[in-house]
Order: sequence, then C-alpha cells, then structure tokens
Amino acid sequence: MAYYLKCRKLDISTGGDPIVLLNEEEAENYGIHPGDRVRLVWKKNKSITAVVDVTEKKVKAGEIGLFEEVWQKKQIEKDDVAEVSLESRPLSIETLKKKMLGQPATYDEIYALIKDIADGRFGKIETTYYAASGFVKEFSEEEMYFVAKAMAETGEQFNFKNIKVVDKHSVGGLAGNRMTPIIVSIIASLGIYIPKTSSRAITSPAGTADMMEVLCPVSFSLKEIMQIVRKTKGCLVWGGGVRMAPADDKIIKVSRPLAIESYDKMIVSIMAKKVATGVDYLLIDVPVGESCKVPTMKHAREIEKKFKVLCKKFKIKVNVVATPAREPVGKGIGPALEARDVLRVLQCHKFRPLDLENKSCRLSGLLLELKGYCKKGQGYKIAKEQVKNGQAWKKMNQIVVAQGGQKNINSEEVMQEVERYEIHSKKSGKIKFVNNRAINEVCMNLGAPIDKFAGIHIHVHFGDKIKKGQKLYTMYASNKERLKLGKVAAEMNVIFHI
Amino acid sequence: MAYYLKCRKLDISTGGDPIVLLNEEEAENYGIHPGDRVRLVWKKNKSITAVVDVTEKKVKAGEIGLFEEVWQKKQIEKDDVAEVSLESRPLSIETLKKKMLGQPATYDEIYALIKDIADGRFGKIETTYYAASGFVKEFSEEEMYFVAKAMAETGEQFNFKNIKVVDKHSVGGLAGNRMTPIIVSIIASLGIYIPKTSSRAITSPAGTADMMEVLCPVSFSLKEIMQIVRKTKGCLVWGGGVRMAPADDKIIKVSRPLAIESYDKMIVSIMAKKVATGVDYLLIDVPVGESCKVPTMKHAREIEKKFKVLCKKFKIKVNVVATPAREPVGKGIGPALEARDVLRVLQCHKFRPLDLENKSCRLSGLLLELKGYCKKGQGYKIAKEQVKNGQAWKKMNQIVVAQGGQKNINSEEVMQEVERYEIHSKKSGKIKFVNNRAINEVCMNLGAPIDKFAGIHIHVHFGDKIKKGQKLYTMYASNKERLKLGKVAAEMNVIFHI
Repeated sequence: MAYYLKCRKLDISTGGDPIVLLNEEEAENYGIHPGDRVRLVWKKNKSITAVVDVTEKKVKAGEIGLFEEVWQKKQIEKDDVAEVSLESRPLSIETLKKKMLGQPATYDEIYALIKDIADGRFGKIETTYYAASGFVKEFSEEEMYFVAKAMAETGEQFNFKNIKVVDKHSVGGLAGNRMTPIIVSIIASLGIYIPKTSSRAITSPAGTADMMEVLCPVSFSLKEIMQIVRKTKGCLVWGGGVRMAPADDKIIKVSRPLAIESYDKMIVSIMAKKVATGVDYLLIDVPVGESCKVPTMKHAREIEKKFKVLCKKFKIKVNVVATPAREPVGKGIGPALEARDVLRVLQCHKFRPLDLENKSCRLSGLLLELKGYCKKGQGYKIAKEQVKNGQAWKKMNQIVVAQGGQKNINSEEVMQEVERYEIHSKKSGKIKFVNNRAINEVCMNLGAPIDKFAGIHIHVHFGDKIKKGQKLYTMYASNKERLKLGKVAAEMNVIFHI
Repeated sequence: MAYYLKCRKLDISTGGDPIVLLNEEEAENYGIHPGDRVRLVWKKNKSITAVVDVTEKKVKAGEIGLFEEVWQKKQIEKDDVAEVSLESRPLSIETLKKKMLGQPATYDEIYALIKDIADGRFGKIETTYYAASGFVKEFSEEEMYFVAKAMAETGEQFNFKNIKVVDKHSVGGLAGNRMTPIIVSIIASLGIYIPKTSSRAITSPAGTADMMEVLCPVSFSLKEIMQIVRKTKGCLVWGGGVRMAPADDKIIKVSRPLAIESYDKMIVSIMAKKVATGVDYLLIDVPVGESCKVPTMKHAREIEKKFKVLCKKFKIKVNVVATPAREPVGKGIGPALEARDVLRVLQCHKFRPLDLENKSCRLSGLLLELKGYCKKGQGYKIAKEQVKNGQAWKKMNQIVVAQGGQKNINSEEVMQEVERYEIHSKKSGKIKFVNNRAINEVCMNLGAPIDKFAGIHIHVHFGDKIKKGQKLYTMYASNKERLKLGKVAAEMNVIFHI
C-alpha cells in the first residue's frame, strides 16, 4: 500500500534518525503509528527511510512534514509529492535475531545488517539490539573480521592506489598524550604517506581534532583530504567530516548510555576505520594504567593478540606497543594548551615537554622500522633527527597551511590571555598517584574542549618530592564564572595524591 | 549545573518519550547534545525528564520548546521558567550492566530499574538493552518473580480489600476466540468479582477491547473501573486506560521490531498485570496450534510449569488449560462481527456459534471449580445454565450499561449495512488446514480493527467436506476501495486449504 502526500518543510532538526510528521487522524486511518518507519520516494530516484511522528494541527491531511535533516539532504522543494509506504522489516532483522540467539552469521548477512545500520534502515532500537548481541555471545575472530570489513565497505574509503600508507592509533583514555601531530610530521617529512584522521573529544578535555583546530581548519571532504595528502604526504583532519565506517558511529551512539565498551568492539571499531583509510602498516599505542581504557599489561597482551589476528586477515602489518601510563604525557591539557606543547616540541623550544618529545620519537621510530624504512633499532635516532633539524616542523607547517591555517605559528602565541588560577599543594610529600579522571573533570568544568583556551598546565611529575605550598598546576578559563566552576571541580577532585 | 529557560509550547506530538527543543548554538555551549536527557523542574514541584532535540530558529536562545506530551501532561503555561539540568545516569544503569553481563540482581536493584523504565528515566536505548539482557542469560524463576512484582508495584493497582478476585487470560494468537465477554458475564452473574482489563488489537483484526467498543465505551480510569466492578462484579474495559504495569508496555514497544517474544517475557508480562489486578484465582487458556503463539503441547506444558512456579510465589491459585486450536472459535472475525457472535451466544440466538458457547462454558466451569464455588466436574453445567436461563445476558447488559452503553442491544443490530463479497471454493474436497495468519491479513486489509464493521464471517469448519463453488466466507468492508484491497489480500492468502 502506498499513499501520496504533499511535502511541507519544517524548521526543526532532530540530530538523529530522519523524522517525518503526519497528520494524526490520517496516520491512524492508514495504520501508521508514531515510531513506525516509512519509505518516501520522490521523482528522480530520490528516496529516504524515516521515522513517523504525528501532529494534530501542524500538518494537514494530505501533507507530510519533513524535518530539516530530510529536506536539506534530499533537496526537496515545497509541494513536491512523496509516495509514502510502510517499510517492511529489513531482511537483516533475521540476521539480528540469529545474533541475539548466539548463532553465527555469514559475511553477506553481516554486510546487509551493517549496511542497514549505516543507511539508517535500522533505528535506535534495532541498532541497540546489535550492540547488545555481543553480550549474548562473543563474536568469533572471523565475525570480527566480517564486521570491520563491512563497516569499511559501507562507507567512504581512501584510495591512494599503489602507494603504501602508514598510520598510528592510540587507544584512548590518557589525558594529554598529544603525540599524533608530532608523529605525522616526522613520518611525512620522510616522504611516507600518513593520512591521519582523528576524533574530537567526547568525554575528555580534547581530542587531536580539537587541538588541531586551534591551528587550522580540520573538517574536509574525502576528496579534499586526498588532495592535501597528495601534496604534503600527511594530514591532521577530523574523521567526522568524512563518512568513514558510518555504521560504527551509529553503534557507538547506542553504546554510550551503557558505558561498557568491550575490547572486541573497540578493536573492530578501530580496524574498520583503518581499513577504510587503506592502511598497510599500523602502529597501535596502548597506554596501560588504572584510569586508562586498558588497566593492566595482561589486558594489553590480550588486545595485541586480537589486533594481530585481524590485521593478518586484512594484510596489514601491525605493531602493538603497550606503555605503562602513570600520568599525562606533556604538560598542557585542553586544546590550546596541548597545541602549545606540540609546537614547543617541533620548534625545539626550551620549555618543551621532554616526555612528549621522547615518546613521539620512540613511536615514530617503531613505525619507520615496521614500514621497513630502516633497520630495527635505528628508527628512534632518525625520528629525533627530523625534530632536531627542523624538518618535522617544516612538514607540520606545510600541513597546517594546506589545511588553510596561518604560516609559522609561534608556540608562544597559541594561548590567549584568559582567566587563570594556581593550585598549590596543601602538604609535603611524594606524588604517589596522578588521577587521570580528576584531570578530565577539572578541565571540562573549566570549559574544555568547546572553549579552546580552557584547561590546565601541569608543573609537577609522578614521583616528584613536593613541598607544602608548591605550585601543582594552573587552571585556565575564558571567564570568571567558568574558573569558579573549575575551582569547585578541583576541590571535589584531587589530581595529585601525595 | 543548571540553566534557566523560558518555556514555549509547540504543537507537535511525538508519540514516544517526552522531547524538548533547545536552540542549537546555546545547547552546544551548554554541552547538551541532541539525544541527551535533561531534567526540567518548575515551581510547585512539577518536573519531568525529557530527551533533547535542537533547532536553529524555531526556539531562540534563552527558550526551551516543549512538545505536546510535555506541556499537556504537566500543565505548563507559556513563559513559565524551567530549571534545566543534564540528567546524570540513573543508578540502575549499573544493574543493567550486571544483567548484560549475565549476573543476578537483587529485588531492590530490579525494582529501581523497572521504575526507571516506568517513569521514563530510561530511554529507548536503555530499555532495549534491558529487553536484550534476557538473551544474554535466561532470568531465573526468582528474577522473573522480581520483575513481575516490580512491574506491578511501579504502576496503578486494583484493591478490592478482602474480596477474592478471579481472572481469565488467553495466550493470544488465535483469530476470533472471543470468549472473554461471555466468561465475565457468567462468572459475575454468580456474584464473583472479575475485573477484566483487555488489550486492543496490535497485529490482529480485533482485541477484546476493540470488540467491546462496538457496544459501549471501554476507556476508564482506575477509580471509575473500581466503581463499575463494585456495582456489577465484572467489567470489560481497555487496560491501556489505566497505568497498570507501565514498564511492561514500554518493554513491549522495544521488543516489537525484533519480533521475538520469549515465553519467559510473555509470562512475566501477563503475571505483572494480574498482580496489579489483585487476582486470587487465575485461569490461563493456551490455544495450541501451528500458527498460534504456542505451537505444540510440549511448549504448553513448559509454560504451565513456569506459571505454576510464579503463581505460587504470588499466592495465586492457577489452572493452565491447553487446547488444540485448528481454526478460529466463533464465526465472525473483526470487532462488530465478533460482538454479534458474543451477543448471539448470550441471547441464545438460533445462529449462535456453538463452539464459542461450549468453550466459554467449559472455561467458566473450570474457573468456578478453581475458585471452589462448586465441586470438580460441576462447573460446566452451572456455567451453561447461566447462559440458558438468561442470567449471563442480564449481567452483560448491566456491565454494558455501567460502562455507558445502550440497554438491550440486539445481536442482529450490531452489524451495519456495509460492502460485502463472498468467497467460494475453487474445488471440491475436505478442509485439511485453516490458516490463522491468512485470516488476520485478509481482515486487516479490509480495515479491521479501526473500521469496526470490517472483517469476515466464516461459513465452514475444519474437516468439512466442501463442494466446488460452495460459500467459504464473506468479506465485509466500509467502502469499495477497502473491499478491493481485501480481495487482493484474499487472492494472496489462502485461508482454507482443501
């Protein structure tokens, strides 16, 4: 059964699945209920699947109201006529049932299911069942491979033809740790392709994309990113601007309320993006510590094993490097404060954080060795040399300019004059523990990452002997109100345990 | 953190969780994203939890747009000021995690979780995880008891003090089978309390509530229902008008897309409503057949065992009666056609369907015996006598009038003059199979249950010897277009396999 309805544009955005509005009485007569999914087809092969809301007056009988997401995306004009029909249940509902009952699925079944998630034929409820199915029975290695492959293939993919591509990924959770821009600069300065896409912060004070945005635009289309990379060999862009592994983003959304991310799901998620990036050599950095995603070395080894199995199936050479993490890497936490640290390292500034420089060079070196650029044991020296001789900074400059930023940004001009407040130690003693979660909470109450200049600068290290009254860290915020909220957060959250 | 915003009423209904609309830029600054849940508090202790949508223009900064569900329910006036804060994750998210990991939960944990579902603090995603948790690990008998108890206690409950209450429930799936009004009339005519709440059809041509609505109003508040029952001992109302076990309704909503209902979930769902009804004696009718919810007698026995365990915990005396079902009970399918059958039985009309009369009396008799009203083996005779002597019809009449319907409705005046079409057999032979699903599909294409007069009237029975050209069933619809759709459905769906 199909019904023909005149389109009406509504100035409302829902931020989620596409939604259409039907006249309440008419919908009832058609047997279409709020929450049902309908297929809309227009002339010229435009079509979309949307969820139904109903209204008593806003939309008259014979009309269909389109929310912003729908008419903007499909370029629908007022008075266009849509053919509306109730969407039958996608076939992959059957696959979903299989997974809920703990049964295996074939690649074709997984592909159809992931495509239904990617294209919005699955709503929140169905996508949640998919996310839940991993709890019914662990996915086999083969199914993890199927899912990652399907996620990559149902979205946009980079294609640099015969050119070998390298990448680096940090399994998150550690504050600061802003090595990515330094590693990309070093690697690209040696002529190796490293098309790096990064995320924005979700529950942390800054992601690499937030930090880079202090220096230049980060949001580009797939085509634009490929042009930047062909020119400079590297890029430091936001992954959200590209439709890479779009099903993964939707699954992450429904996983958030439960806040249990299994390692399997995390690994599949990372692999999907890497496969879509067309990576040949991959370095995985796993910070290991109590308040990180990976708490112990035993967990790290488990993750390493799974990455190796999956990468082998995808013909990707991988090196998983687990490093104990007892405190942030670098001194600044927050977009601009981290950008300053990164530029200080690349510009060999006297106040540069040495831990950040060293860890970045170590990982760059391992990536060079993995790629076969040099022999084992020589990578670190080569990487360090690229920083010392200014080649890495030159490359970073090229990338920033290619992405539309200013030339030669001075590390000391990145932070602006904002409100600040110093936190001093209330007692003497040794720093026995640095609370990563407390750092995140203080920084976010100060306004990071939306406020680029908010965050903290750390003056001490794990293991340091501290005197009563000694300066521990400085808080930065754009206005006095925000600084006040930060002070409340700092009182509720002890960062340095002495 | 709390923000103060001026209320704006929007003429849009969403049919689901309450939704509020925020100005896009402002929401971003506040760190509130589409899909987040916020708590709104007004003066005079009004408060609600709602999901956030954003708009560029529809709502200005400093305002909050309220969808119909919100301002109607909470009687909010234009320009009222709401205190808006991001809702922190309910503690029962932790219980949900336990269940997703297959761990047991205590009654207090289950109660808090079910209450969060009932009160809307859980959104669709969280509720779906709960529904999915049953696939991770079967709930233990104790947990099934916990869930049913919590569902009943977090909603409205009947309370007839010391008076003993009986109830009857059919495990659905069989077309027709409209025994409920007859059983209620028989039982109440003997002075026994039977406060029957029924559902409307969801994926079938008629529910008991749809059928009763042909005769009288069915939507009442808890207080009104208790008044009706005190007056007439029985009632035949729609359960949806009362907030009984409201969490169950929300769980059913998220279970629908997957279309797997486990027996455990079905049993818990039934028990929750019965506990909220305050039932002391319960008769469960289980039609067993290929296209019913329960396909074999083995499954029926499994269900019986679980009902017995749960009823014992709730101190409810139960009798589970499994009956093979090879065809509909009664001749009419569709609200008015079924109402005619029911009235024909109660009014001892010569065209009354005897199968419906006999099954209703049999179950009424078993219920009387369970209650201890008479000795074993005597119930059927007593029930039949109440039909024959007109006492059951007198009682039905009282109930219809108490619910606001006309007095003495004649069975032959229930159906109106509508479009009709007869289906004749294309060959001779014996009826070997009656397709219950095909009956549903034909009736719904004819317009049932929204169109009260749509449906079919069956002229033959399972096992009958049929001649070519013999009349099999008659289709009814309110207009020619609908009848045409019914004919298409009848061609696609063979009801009688000869």
